[in-house]
Amino acid sequence: MNIIEIINKKRLKQTLTDDEIKYVIDNYLSGEIKDYQMSSLLMAILLNDMTNEEIYSLTKYMAESGDKLDLSSLGDNVVDKHSTGGVGDKTTLIIAPIVASCGVKVAKMSGRGLGHTGGTIDKLESIPGFTVNLTEEDFLNQVNEIGVAITSQTENIAIADKKIYALRDVTGTVESIPLIASSIMSKKIALGAKKLVLDVKVGNGALIKNIDDAKRLSNLMIDIGKHNNIEVICVLTNMNIPLGNNIGNSLEVEEAIDILKNHKLGSLRDLCIELSSHMVSLGLKITYEEAKERVLNNLDNGEAYNKFVELVTKQHGDINNLPKATGKYEIKSMTKGYLIDIDAYKLGILSMNLGAGRKNKEDKIDYSAGIIVKKNINDYINEGDVIMTLYTNKEITEIDNTIFKISDKKIEDNKLIYEIIK
Amino acid sequence: MNIIEIINKKRLKQTLTDDEIKYVIDNYLSGEIKDYQMSSLLMAILLNDMTNEEIYSLTKYMAESGDKLDLSSLGDNVVDKHSTGGVGDKTTLIIAPIVASCGVKVAKMSGRGLGHTGGTIDKLESIPGFTVNLTEEDFLNQVNEIGVAITSQTENIAIADKKIYALRDVTGTVESIPLIASSIMSKKIALGAKKLVLDVKVGNGALIKNIDDAKRLSNLMIDIGKHNNIEVICVLTNMNIPLGNNIGNSLEVEEAIDILKNHKLGSLRDLCIELSSHMVSLGLKITYEEAKERVLNNLDNGEAYNKFVELVTKQHGDINNLPKATGKYEIKSMTKGYLIDIDAYKLGILSMNLGAGRKNKEDKIDYSAGIIVKKNINDYINEGDVIMTLYTNKEITEIDNTIFKISDKKIEDNKLIYEIIK
Repeated sequence: MNIIEIINKKRLKQTLTDDEIKYVIDNYLSGEIKDYQMSSLLMAILLNDMTNEEIYSLTKYMAESGDKLDLSSLGDNVVDKHSTGGVGDKTTLIIAPIVASCGVKVAKMSGRGLGHTGGTIDKLESIPGFTVNLTEEDFLNQVNEIGVAITSQTENIAIADKKIYALRDVTGTVESIPLIASSIMSKKIALGAKKLVLDVKVGNGALIKNIDDAKRLSNLMIDIGKHNNIEVICVLTNMNIPLGNNIGNSLEVEEAIDILKNHKLGSLRDLCIELSSHMVSLGLKITYEEAKERVLNNLDNGEAYNKFVELVTKQHGDINNLPKATGKYEIKSMTKGYLIDIDAYKLGILSMNLGAGRKNKEDKIDYSAGIIVKKNINDYINEGDVIMTLYTNKEITEIDNTIFKISDKKIEDNKLIYEIIK
Repeated sequence: MNIIEIINKKRLKQTLTDDEIKYVIDNYLSGEIKDYQMSSLLMAILLNDMTNEEIYSLTKYMAESGDKLDLSSLGDNVVDKHSTGGVGDKTTLIIAPIVASCGVKVAKMSGRGLGHTGGTIDKLESIPGFTVNLTEEDFLNQVNEIGVAITSQTENIAIADKKIYALRDVTGTVESIPLIASSIMSKKIALGAKKLVLDVKVGNGALIKNIDDAKRLSNLMIDIGKHNNIEVICVLTNMNIPLGNNIGNSLEVEEAIDILKNHKLGSLRDLCIELSSHMVSLGLKITYEEAKERVLNNLDNGEAYNKFVELVTKQHGDINNLPKATGKYEIKSMTKGYLIDIDAYKLGILSMNLGAGRKNKEDKIDYSAGIIVKKNINDYINEGDVIMTLYTNKEITEIDNTIFKISDKKIEDNKLIYEIIK
């Protein structure tokens, strides 16, 4: 077996064997197969596709390439979630306590933010004292005790996936459905998931640009799930609907608290209810409708917020002393009309420049920095209205004025949830 | 401009601009674009193809990436030839003096053999005293004086092509018609060719496996030629017909002499006559038929051989003292029937193991080593007939007995020349 023959097979649209895929993963990790050979193979896979059998093999060997977490001691009502979004996901802060308050266990290993926004772990660390470095034993014990724990992900999960993902990022080979599906599922398999709700983001700014691709990706992840004894539900959601108004670590914790206290409506709440309901349905083996009723009840009666406080307290966080930025700047609209689009990417860059994210891996995050957007999609804005407030401890020099798009007509496609596939 | 956007365009079958292709070549040479990005782009080009305009740009920037040779001082009846064969080409030794004897100038820069057989330069160096390191001035003067010179190619011709070719070789991206065409033509442009005959090899063992691909490659090289003011004739030839009986450096010089003295018939002679006739036709602006008559005459009347002797003498070679191996081993057939196939690759490996080629770049060649195949395709062989003779100064330990294929029926497709495209 050699890598050039394997590349040639895929180039000619032939099917790779399980042995050949194992050879690729093993030898890429050992350095025998070079980056320039792997990237050529990845482009051939992107353009010539893979069969489900090939994808199962790829997923398996990536999952096996690092440490594995065993959640079997937690029983069978443990449910995980994942978003294909890419942009820092604040839903975990809200969903984990909601779902746990309904009696479903959430054992969440999360990553740090690599891009311009912080990850779940960074957000939790903005709570003074909150520890994200649980030992595996403490982590499992806490889930058994209070139903929920969130800890920082070990570096050694699915390391072949990590190495391949880093290469895809710099070789134009990110947008391959088989590669996206196997990447996500290999991590989930390694993390011991048996029930999984996936938030598949669709839209121009997302990895997945249209509903057809989202359906193929969803069905593929469901198939990989079945092949690995994992129940998967995919929720296809509109990437272009902004989720919540706050960007920045402690500001997002504040927004999560507002939703958990049932003080705030909007798309972020709607999405969290949707995802939570599917998780509760999977975990308790009840219908979606029954699950949704429990979720809404627990938001209403305070159980969800209480679970959040319990989680924070258990992990030594002090919810009453979230950091505040010294500088606060109100940015006003220079024009009038309906707000029809918010550029999430540019908003993320601005937030990073205010101190909320890392430009480089070693940068320190200013947990108090960030942005609160004061208007929602299809709101009417007058000249001089405050459109966002910036929180920072830095000097502000320049604001990108192309973040918001304002028009004289409302937009029509503002549906949040497109479809559920299971 | 950045390489990921460029890869993405080609991935989506969009057309790259001239500026983008210049950016790729410049930045790959400077090291800004990494091997793993280039190989991803090459695979996308292989699978998604290129327009003629893209190919013209690629060829241009590769040709401009190194030194250029200016042959304009030689006038307009200079003709070059090239084979897409890959396997060491002994036709140059025969064709160059034939064509020069007909009054057409041959200014040949050749490479050394990188694979298991020697290149033209290695073959010439087997003639004691023959110098292959002419200065550019001496090279051009000699062509003006006696009509022919053969010298070793500078390392600095089309260096982007060299770097890309080396990468293609290890990333499964060799077999792309746009990449093959631009690679060949960029070198020929850099070497100052204005009239060119191309021997396009077709067959299972060749880069080009079928006539359709050979036609596309030929038409493409003719188009690139037109775009660069180069007249191109392509001769599509059967890769599976063995060319001559001798393998090994001085043995091939001996065979060349036999043909130039008109003492030997067969496919090698036929191909040399065909290619020479097209070159003479191009150089003297006469018909193919008129050119072929001159070629046959000069083989018959000794002019072609005399030109060879003149070339060798001019470059300080001593034709009367070709090296001879001390060991000579006759290999006999263990079976009987018609000889229907000779595995040129395995024969090349055997020849290398006898000392005739380089296993590693730094290996010394034994110029006297090699093989003479005693039978031709469709010859009937009896058990015990000598099928080849090995010449070597080494111990022989093992002979691959799958080099020759013998059958009870002759083969039918033994046509040497498939088609001429101009």
